[in-house]
Amino acid sequence: MSLAFNLLNTTENGGRRGQMHLPHQAVETPVFMPVGTAGSVKAVPQETVEALDAQIILGNTYHLYLRPGHEAIRRMGGLHRFISWPRAMLTDSGGFQVYSLAQLRKVTDEGVRFRSHLDGSSHFFTPEHSMDVQIALGADICMAFDECTEYPADRSRVEESLRPTMAWAQRSLDHFRAHQDEVPWRDDFGGQTQKLFGIVQGGMYHDLRRESAERLVEMDFDGYAIGGLSVGEPRELTLEVISEVLPLLPKNKPRYVMGVGYPDEIELYARMGVDMMDCVLPTRAARHGLLFTSQGRVNIKNKQYSEDHGPADPECDCMVCRRYSRAYLRHLIQCGEPLSGTLNTIHNLAYYLGIMKRVRAELAADPVRR
Amino acid sequence: MSLAFNLLNTTENGGRRGQMHLPHQAVETPVFMPVGTAGSVKAVPQETVEALDAQIILGNTYHLYLRPGHEAIRRMGGLHRFISWPRAMLTDSGGFQVYSLAQLRKVTDEGVRFRSHLDGSSHFFTPEHSMDVQIALGADICMAFDECTEYPADRSRVEESLRPTMAWAQRSLDHFRAHQDEVPWRDDFGGQTQKLFGIVQGGMYHDLRRESAERLVEMDFDGYAIGGLSVGEPRELTLEVISEVLPLLPKNKPRYVMGVGYPDEIELYARMGVDMMDCVLPTRAARHGLLFTSQGRVNIKNKQYSEDHGPADPECDCMVCRRYSRAYLRHLIQCGEPLSGTLNTIHNLAYYLGIMKRVRAELAADPVRR
Repeated sequence: MSLAFNLLNTTENGGRRGQMHLPHQAVETPVFMPVGTAGSVKAVPQETVEALDAQIILGNTYHLYLRPGHEAIRRMGGLHRFISWPRAMLTDSGGFQVYSLAQLRKVTDEGVRFRSHLDGSSHFFTPEHSMDVQIALGADICMAFDECTEYPADRSRVEESLRPTMAWAQRSLDHFRAHQDEVPWRDDFGGQTQKLFGIVQGGMYHDLRRESAERLVEMDFDGYAIGGLSVGEPRELTLEVISEVLPLLPKNKPRYVMGVGYPDEIELYARMGVDMMDCVLPTRAARHGLLFTSQGRVNIKNKQYSEDHGPADPECDCMVCRRYSRAYLRHLIQCGEPLSGTLNTIHNLAYYLGIMKRVRAELAADPVRR
Repeated sequence: MSLAFNLLNTTENGGRRGQMHLPHQAVETPVFMPVGTAGSVKAVPQETVEALDAQIILGNTYHLYLRPGHEAIRRMGGLHRFISWPRAMLTDSGGFQVYSLAQLRKVTDEGVRFRSHLDGSSHFFTPEHSMDVQIALGADICMAFDECTEYPADRSRVEESLRPTMAWAQRSLDHFRAHQDEVPWRDDFGGQTQKLFGIVQGGMYHDLRRESAERLVEMDFDGYAIGGLSVGEPRELTLEVISEVLPLLPKNKPRYVMGVGYPDEIELYARMGVDMMDCVLPTRAARHGLLFTSQGRVNIKNKQYSEDHGPADPECDCMVCRRYSRAYLRHLIQCGEPLSGTLNTIHNLAYYLGIMKRVRAELAADPVRR
């Protein structure tokens, strides 16, 4: 059963208002997905993430494979049940974390051998193994196993990386199709199972991106991601690659740009026709005292806020801005109070999710161009 | 205006069911007060502390004086407004933290000179200064400035400490009476102001405890605390001192045992006629993975919980036990996730507050002996 994705509206600029019907949740797009690396959107209880109206969150295959282990999560009924999150989830393939966190990484045509960043133990990930892990975790959306190239990267380096990544995409799809019925919650959703997205790579080389996109589209995934961005390249390059790739992707399937971005970026990309985005920025920045607001960025550690009675963002009606002052938020981070990360994260997520809610409303009101 | 304390019921064993009418909240007694050291019950948002039905929380004068400073809090309308806590609060005098945290402490008849544990800066606390700080903070209940003796302590050491502590009690009371109208929220509660409690000291020496209690009762405080317990003495000694002192205190005023205790202790003391208690144990233990449950203590880090589907406490209906499994709580602490401290603390506070709720109901149902 392929993913039901209803496009409600498409604007002149290509922006799309849609609904993605996943087993655990109907997700309104464009959507921003908070990151819950190790099974927790850091510092925020699940009931609060729900109250913030997040419809889908991300889990990291690499982290959850290492701790507590995918077989343990399978035995506990899958990741939704394990962390008590009733709505939609997406897991990445582990490829990006192997690239960014693991040590002594060695890539062959077969897969990637790496050492855990936690204890140095040796592990081997293949596309088939990534699928097995992701099926055990049981997210609504799985991602094909890929290699993410660094920035900057020579053309030859990117070409050499793209060859196995495209082969791995086909192997991911074959293994996923053969085993997707093994998802732990198979019997709970009337036969619906997980969906699998392919990941367009190709570095900053437009022809390689084009080749990657075309081959993935031939394979026929449930949706398509643009990976290998937000790896240190200038913003204009990110935009160029997205602009290049989007028109190559099928209009009737969701398009996901991985790992972006700042508030103005997620708004821009959503208006261009990106349906899904995720980023650690709102949650990670929050824990370091950086708040995103309608008035720009606020470093809440600054002395200027020490007696500021006002809310983090005067135009925000989140539970933090309704109750707490900048002075209190500054005090909490100055004292190293754990509540600091919680309140800052709640505000930043509210801000990000609020942007997408506003963009969805504006896209819906735009002249239709089907 | 003295503190309105209504005794609703007194049992054969001396247990009391009462109501303490404080400016910000009518508090049902016996009551357990969660500790919010630096203006935050660590890791738990104020709305959750409210949802847990905590009626009064504690703030630490020493910490808040150092950061953000009592004058800043006064300018921001007092501690209630600063941290956005609408219910009752109590501040200690700073004496205990000077004793337990500060460096290079030097006690004279005038007061205590000490160095901050944060930056080594030098500070001098007198009874008058402690009152000024506590009036600026504006808690509903302030505590007289005292010295807390260590355990074990020679009789001569305790005698020498008790002499200034009793003089400081009178100086605290005099200064408090002269300045209590300066509380930041003076105009918001129809002329009600803060209340001041005296602290019975005297180490483990019954006659010194008796002398201390009698002198404080003569001074006529709004309530009386028993301090200098939970400093490392065996539990039987704690119980002995409480049993010795309680009958010396006026029946029509609240009695507060500071810094206790384990769940069975707070229940025992409440049944003996203690009206108020506070302790960092439920919150601090939570952050280290120790959960208090109806089945005893649970060290959630233990491997035996790694695939335990059940809640932390099968008899608990707190928001954590209703939603999350032991396996998930174990996973969070194993991964160092900040959510771990939040969820564990919520459960432990729910357990402590639940004990007191049950004890209040049982005391109310006991045969009356006025």
